Amino acid sequence: MKKIAMLTSGGDAPGMNAHIRAVVRAAIYNGLEIYGIVGGYSGLIEGNFIKLTRKETANIISSGGTILKTSRSKEFMNAGGRAAAAEQLKENGIEGLICCGGDGTFHGAHALWEEHGVQVVCTPGTIDNDLYGTDYTIGYDTAINTAVQAIDKIRDTADSHGRVFLIEVMGRHAGFIAMDVGISCGAEYIAIPEIATNLDILYQRILKQGKTRRTIIIVGEGDEYGGAAVIAELMKQKYDIEPKVSILGHMQRGGAPTARDRVLASHLGVKAVEALLDGKTDVMVGKSMHDIVYTPLVETWTKKKKIFNYMMELSDILA
Amino acid sequence: MKKIAMLTSGGDAPGMNAHIRAVVRAAIYNGLEIYGIVGGYSGLIEGNFIKLTRKETANIISSGGTILKTSRSKEFMNAGGRAAAAEQLKENGIEGLICCGGDGTFHGAHALWEEHGVQVVCTPGTIDNDLYGTDYTIGYDTAINTAVQAIDKIRDTADSHGRVFLIEVMGRHAGFIAMDVGISCGAEYIAIPEIATNLDILYQRILKQGKTRRTIIIVGEGDEYGGAAVIAELMKQKYDIEPKVSILGHMQRGGAPTARDRVLASHLGVKAVEALLDGKTDVMVGKSMHDIVYTPLVETWTKKKKIFNYMMELSDILA
Amino acid sequence: MKKIAMLTSGGDAPGMNAHIRAVVRAAIYNGLEIYGIVGGYSGLIEGNFIKLTRKETANIISSGGTILKTSRSKEFMNAGGRAAAAEQLKENGIEGLICCGGDGTFHGAHALWEEHGVQVVCTPGTIDNDLYGTDYTIGYDTAINTAVQAIDKIRDTADSHGRVFLIEVMGRHAGFIAMDVGISCGAEYIAIPEIATNLDILYQRILKQGKTRRTIIIVGEGDEYGGAAVIAELMKQKYDIEPKVSILGHMQRGGAPTARDRVLASHLGVKAVEALLDGKTDVMVGKSMHDIVYTPLVETWTKKKKIFNYMMELSDILA
Amino acid sequence: MKKIAMLTSGGDAPGMNAHIRAVVRAAIYNGLEIYGIVGGYSGLIEGNFIKLTRKETANIISSGGTILKTSRSKEFMNAGGRAAAAEQLKENGIEGLICCGGDGTFHGAHALWEEHGVQVVCTPGTIDNDLYGTDYTIGYDTAINTAVQAIDKIRDTADSHGRVFLIEVMGRHAGFIAMDVGISCGAEYIAIPEIATNLDILYQRILKQGKTRRTIIIVGEGDEYGGAAVIAELMKQKYDIEPKVSILGHMQRGGAPTARDRVLASHLGVKAVEALLDGKTDVMVGKSMHDIVYTPLVETWTKKKKIFNYMMELSDILA
Repeated sequence: MKKIAMLTSGGDAPGMNAHIRAVVRAAIYNGLEIYGIVGGYSGLIEGNFIKLTRKETANIISSGGTILKTSRSKEFMNAGGRAAAAEQLKENGIEGLICCGGDGTFHGAHALWEEHGVQVVCTPGTIDNDLYGTDYTIGYDTAINTAVQAIDKIRDTADSHGRVFLIEVMGRHAGFIAMDVGISCGAEYIAIPEIATNLDILYQRILKQGKTRRTIIIVGEGDEYGGAAVIAELMKQKYDIEPKVSILGHMQRGGAPTARDRVLASHLGVKAVEALLDGKTDVMVGKSMHDIVYTPLVETWTKKKKIFNYMMELSDILA
Repeated sequence: MKKIAMLTSGGDAPGMNAHIRAVVRAAIYNGLEIYGIVGGYSGLIEGNFIKLTRKETANIISSGGTILKTSRSKEFMNAGGRAAAAEQLKENGIEGLICCGGDGTFHGAHALWEEHGVQVVCTPGTIDNDLYGTDYTIGYDTAINTAVQAIDKIRDTADSHGRVFLIEVMGRHAGFIAMDVGISCGAEYIAIPEIATNLDILYQRILKQGKTRRTIIIVGEGDEYGGAAVIAELMKQKYDIEPKVSILGHMQRGGAPTARDRVLASHLGVKAVEALLDGKTDVMVGKSMHDIVYTPLVETWTKKKKIFNYMMELSDILA
Repeated sequence: MKKIAMLTSGGDAPGMNAHIRAVVRAAIYNGLEIYGIVGGYSGLIEGNFIKLTRKETANIISSGGTILKTSRSKEFMNAGGRAAAAEQLKENGIEGLICCGGDGTFHGAHALWEEHGVQVVCTPGTIDNDLYGTDYTIGYDTAINTAVQAIDKIRDTADSHGRVFLIEVMGRHAGFIAMDVGISCGAEYIAIPEIATNLDILYQRILKQGKTRRTIIIVGEGDEYGGAAVIAELMKQKYDIEPKVSILGHMQRGGAPTARDRVLASHLGVKAVEALLDGKTDVMVGKSMHDIVYTPLVETWTKKKKIFNYMMELSDILA
Repeated sequence: MKKIAMLTSGGDAPGMNAHIRAVVRAAIYNGLEIYGIVGGYSGLIEGNFIKLTRKETANIISSGGTILKTSRSKEFMNAGGRAAAAEQLKENGIEGLICCGGDGTFHGAHALWEEHGVQVVCTPGTIDNDLYGTDYTIGYDTAINTAVQAIDKIRDTADSHGRVFLIEVMGRHAGFIAMDVGISCGAEYIAIPEIATNLDILYQRILKQGKTRRTIIIVGEGDEYGGAAVIAELMKQKYDIEPKVSILGHMQRGGAPTARDRVLASHLGVKAVEALLDGKTDVMVGKSMHDIVYTPLVETWTKKKKIFNYMMELSDILA
């Protein structure tokens, strides 16, 4: 193996740049040439390759986003697009591919292997932490800290006014972000997709705080009611109260990665290169309980990662 | 003069605690007893007084919100409420009152003076910077920095995807926050209430960036269309593009104050106490071009503070 | 069991307040009265007890330091001091004690149990992460992120000038902080107490960067040469270069805790209360690989926690 | 005028990149070609020119350091070096030069004009704020906020232990940073170069706080005793107390610029280009009380900018 390539795809996540840096350095350390594909699978179809060197990745460890850009490619969802992509890899002499992203990215990588025998190793890059086969995904730790810092600010004003706030965080169909953020912010209630949102209990928690004290409620975007704005409307109808709504939004996707995200991204970058050298393919390189774990790509989306039970417990005891 | 009191009212702003600390220390320095009124004008009507000492205000200089809480009191808008408030001050032997807040707060203070002869000095505490008689208000510098930091994160993800973002910031009917934040974030377009929002120019700026590069548009909440969500809808109808929308929301009201806000809050706190001792009343203590300025309360809302022309210029040249 | 107490002792760590909040809420949840001892073991000897309630701990989850203060008590190191402490607990009807701190704190707690049969449960609160029996200590995650953020700033200026920087981080006799921070900052060399510091390799790394590019070297305070200033002096003598030195210092001990530190502190707080209720004593409540672990206090300092081998590997491959 | 160039020189300061971006955009807006000189005056002597475009400066507004690098050039201090520099400008057809830096930079620029008739406009880029002719320098606001945030963390631990801390900040021979930071952090004493440091008063302030409460003392690096470490030693000899010392160091030079620094850097960048077009030379473009001010370079170092008297007052009243 002499030449490999990497791309980032799907939603970007803080730490992707630290990951790119680690892949580049590990590749060079192992005597490989390393190419970056700009623009995810779209860039792959278009043959948008650039040679990556130590110099180009010298100071990116601390920056959010991805220098390789990313996309959600419709063309790649068709067999024709994937055939064109495989052809590009062949033409450019790329013998192994590293794809960093979420489950959409992994579906694509799996198809590349299945249909065209492309040796492909994936790494978990998403703020949502919703991938089986790794305790944490690259970007998750930064996202929860960004949310916590924003909510600390909201609490200042909520506290000064004695207000009720419904704060919506990201996470798609998974409640990891909501749960960690909720515990970290001392939320009075945490609504997550995995559990029915109980408006009566939620309202009881508000009453328990009393009129002069603030109440902070964290809502995962995928909760059964569909987010904070809907719940606020229901609260108004049902209990005649008008909570303030704050949707943290896209800021959760950016920013300088935390130490944990940088270390995780670095570790998985090195191990992804080694996995290619070891002949591994169609797997995600994850990290669980301090060990590197290789999970077949199909399992990453067919098996479901669960929120630890103790988090539910904590949320009730500490509310 | 032996006993004075202070309150915070209206929307809270970062730096109010640094301001309270300074008022307390300046009062003690000048041999006065100082009382805090908890809960703004509502607290005043209810007689919610607490004695403030150096110790209670020892570490609050760095915290957002206000330890005296705040409120928007409906009762105080009636003559009866104000009479009750004046009575409370009299009963408690308070000879002078310092009110920190925005124009609603100032209207109330002015009425207290007009109707009941209460000696009252106001200080500008609002993130919106929309008060005539001071270059900057307490909380403004923190709010723009909070917004800038959030938008830096959004730019990471916008950049990785080449997306168009409409980001809404606070500021009520004034464009100060939008303008400073827009220049600071290198926005391609800045929509403010003071100027007609030109969707065609806005669209041209997006086209100029091109499909693969991100566009950041900052929208002041009081812009003529009514905010980022409305503009996004119009952009879709008119030009068939779908910008992402992010409303920064209440986080802009909280957080540890910046150095400038702490210094301003401290300075105005000391000068407000001195103003009471000097017999001043019915005025706002502000700061303009490094000098302390006393503005009759009525002028603070009848005269209009303007955004510097050079900011408009900068926004065009740098876009 | 009806009445318990808690204290914080030794060096403070971010997350101690989140931990206190969790202990208080878990105690109340379990029907216990909970007292705080102000000033660590010194406060215990003096009988400095205060009753803790939900209200007092309402907003402390996000603040650094410890509302219970801390100390390094010389008196408590004598049998007489400990006898007085045990007497205070007895007089106040305290049936169980939670002590949060590092190994000095644990020695004291162990002696209280051994000599006076006080039921005592410890929790790991130190930024150094040097306690056997838990993967991470409360405060560690915040400390490494504080260091990383400071070094990101230093890298800006190092990069602009092409300078060599020796940056010293805390960690006492353990290299956990240095290692995690070094990997996170893309350091060219990481000096830790566990491994001999090789000045020749260090110098080679500087040469490899070249004259126009910056070099960042992270030094754990307990390294064999005794820190960054000494190494700088040696570099000057040996290789005639003058690296800049920056000692991050005490800022690493403070600040708002990260999400991970808040969740860990909350979890361990709840479990410490449950451990007392279960009759456990003379143990530290830690967390390893997502599970709660109880380690006899003596083992926490006689057994040695090791840095993961893969961190050394990463540091070489990524330098 | 068709072609201009710019460089950054001396100590770097946050906001220099925002300044470069503004110069580039203003140059293009005015129909000029704009070149960057890499490495300050050293780069100028070597002819290290690169053409700058909008694209290259697209996302640098938020980054610390300077993409043009900087240096302290010894060669440029000699007439021969300056002659070579002037020759390079001539050969490359550069008709006007913008130099961003501090007084060393300005001396060099002045000599270029005096000796070789190079049209040169300077802009104030230094964290120290020690330049006559501008209220604030680019980088100053960021530096004081960085220091304040670090000291907020130190206060957490100082408070938990009831310790005395001497914290040294930058500022060279000027006390601007120390004074603004001291007021912002609620320091008990602020030592600055402009005023004799009174150890007895300093000690009285420590005594006033009492044994159980922390004392924060801010020391400007240029104070008469030569910094925090020396004062600590004197305190030990004279009063038998051992304050902790923390030297904030180089982190004060880096990091993402604040909103104010970005706006100032942007404004001065646009005006520097316009100044060249207007035929101005041998001047610094500064900003005072919201107006752009042009100061002959010689005056920037022969006249002395003073700390506002009210800051001294505040420091006494609020201590």
